[in-house]
Amino acid sequence: MPPDARQVPLGIGDDCALLRLRPGHLLAVSSDMLVEGRHFLAGTDARRLGHKALAVNLSDLAAMGARPLGFTLALALPAVDESWLAGFSIGLHALADRHGCPLVGGDTTRGPLNICITVFGELAAGQALRRDAAVAGDDLYLSGRTGEARLALAALQGEPWAREAAAGDMDDLLARLETPQPRVSLGQALAGVARAAIDVSDGLVGDLGHLLEASGCGARLQASRLPVAPALARLAPQHRWQCLLAGGDDYELLFTASPGQRARIEALARATGTGVTRIGEMTPGEGLQIVDEAGTVLPGRFAGFDHFG
Amino acid sequence: MPPDARQVPLGIGDDCALLRLRPGHLLAVSSDMLVEGRHFLAGTDARRLGHKALAVNLSDLAAMGARPLGFTLALALPAVDESWLAGFSIGLHALADRHGCPLVGGDTTRGPLNICITVFGELAAGQALRRDAAVAGDDLYLSGRTGEARLALAALQGEPWAREAAAGDMDDLLARLETPQPRVSLGQALAGVARAAIDVSDGLVGDLGHLLEASGCGARLQASRLPVAPALARLAPQHRWQCLLAGGDDYELLFTASPGQRARIEALARATGTGVTRIGEMTPGEGLQIVDEAGTVLPGRFAGFDHFG
Repeated sequence: MPPDARQVPLGIGDDCALLRLRPGHLLAVSSDMLVEGRHFLAGTDARRLGHKALAVNLSDLAAMGARPLGFTLALALPAVDESWLAGFSIGLHALADRHGCPLVGGDTTRGPLNICITVFGELAAGQALRRDAAVAGDDLYLSGRTGEARLALAALQGEPWAREAAAGDMDDLLARLETPQPRVSLGQALAGVARAAIDVSDGLVGDLGHLLEASGCGARLQASRLPVAPALARLAPQHRWQCLLAGGDDYELLFTASPGQRARIEALARATGTGVTRIGEMTPGEGLQIVDEAGTVLPGRFAGFDHFG
Repeated sequence: MPPDARQVPLGIGDDCALLRLRPGHLLAVSSDMLVEGRHFLAGTDARRLGHKALAVNLSDLAAMGARPLGFTLALALPAVDESWLAGFSIGLHALADRHGCPLVGGDTTRGPLNICITVFGELAAGQALRRDAAVAGDDLYLSGRTGEARLALAALQGEPWAREAAAGDMDDLLARLETPQPRVSLGQALAGVARAAIDVSDGLVGDLGHLLEASGCGARLQASRLPVAPALARLAPQHRWQCLLAGGDDYELLFTASPGQRARIEALARATGTGVTRIGEMTPGEGLQIVDEAGTVLPGRFAGFDHFG
């Protein structure tokens, strides 16, 4: 799909690309670098890798409430591999087209495999979903569900606890790991409605911690409200909690909103076709409490997920 | 230097950075990836590398006539090396500060050394210096001079023809290779005055070829008008021409303008402290003629410079 000439007056082929923002809008930018063996396993299907490289960046736009405008790709490859490039390109452009986010510039060079995408979006001034904007009393929400990517990775790496639970659902789990769906429509719908947001890429608890720190408040997370995928329900509790709370690679939105917005947020979730669950509330002071159905504070700490670290 | 809060309402630390463009302005973006052994030699001083990584991107903004707004850095490093990072950061930020172009976002990861910078600028709509805008009859200009970076690289690589000529000027030559000065002020001054522009990064003739192809015209290049650095004057003609015409890593501006703009361009060159030389003219039809003082067409072909290729 060629870029919209009004949005992208000049695309690939000059020293710079030119993009046009709507009046009264700010530019949102994010850049992510993906390295083999750290962000994806060697031998990952090129088409899925093309998808994921853009998806993780679109997820950052979604977490600000921005509308995608375009992206640049810088790619280092050990050798020219037409078949790999064709697959990568298909996966990349399929996702780009779905979100109206054309490739506007690029740089390719020879070197160890490295994918660097920078994505550009726009949002109305004053409507950004910043991570420092949560206040005590806000509801805490999660889009979709967490943990499946972590279970898929563990199964791929041959962890015994993961292989049994994943058996039978492996295609779905792999899709969560390798072709995450960034919550772009939901993020835009939440701009001006929700208060604070962050994308869950390093584990729910770890990213919630970033939001709490930036906002200077605490949270009570109702662990029993977290949606649990069927494969995760088959895990022993310790592994299930690890996946749900500290899985990583989820690319869901974690956001807060005034309790007065509950009906509106439910309506936006339906309108954008994205499941949203109220999983807790923001509290005064500092720190995160994770409680079960009875309100008992759960023991254990859940560190953030360090990519293959 | 902290970023201007009006230009960068939100810098490092959230899912995205937010930038504000002035009304009536377009966003200009460019992304370059630098890989060890291809764009710089192993062991290059970290401070100089930090400078160069941003300089090559600022040169792209300059070639569009854009004003720098900010940049993102994605960096893969084999291991955390505080001393290297400190040097890299000093070189990077010194150049960024000089051009009012703050770091607004970043991503660091473990992996083979790779530096990916995406730079953002703004320019008034309709004033971009596109490479497809040249017309027959335009004057052809070059900022600064070409060839010194190529001579420095050849001397570093131990080429006998280069070592002798470079001796005595090696510090200056290395500065041209490792800390190029992007022509940011000149580029902005030329917006709305010059017609077409491109930055000379892959060799004068190669990049001129890109401009001719995009604009659908030809050019006559007066080779004897090219400024020659003292060290290049000591080279045998064949090596001198190779450096001047197909050197690479020059980061000068090659641009065209109507002959009616000569006085204005001379004034802008003086005002921005950047030497500018009229080196030829655009011609109807296709192709590039390189002529000597007598107007005789010179033989030989000068391919573009492929980074260390």
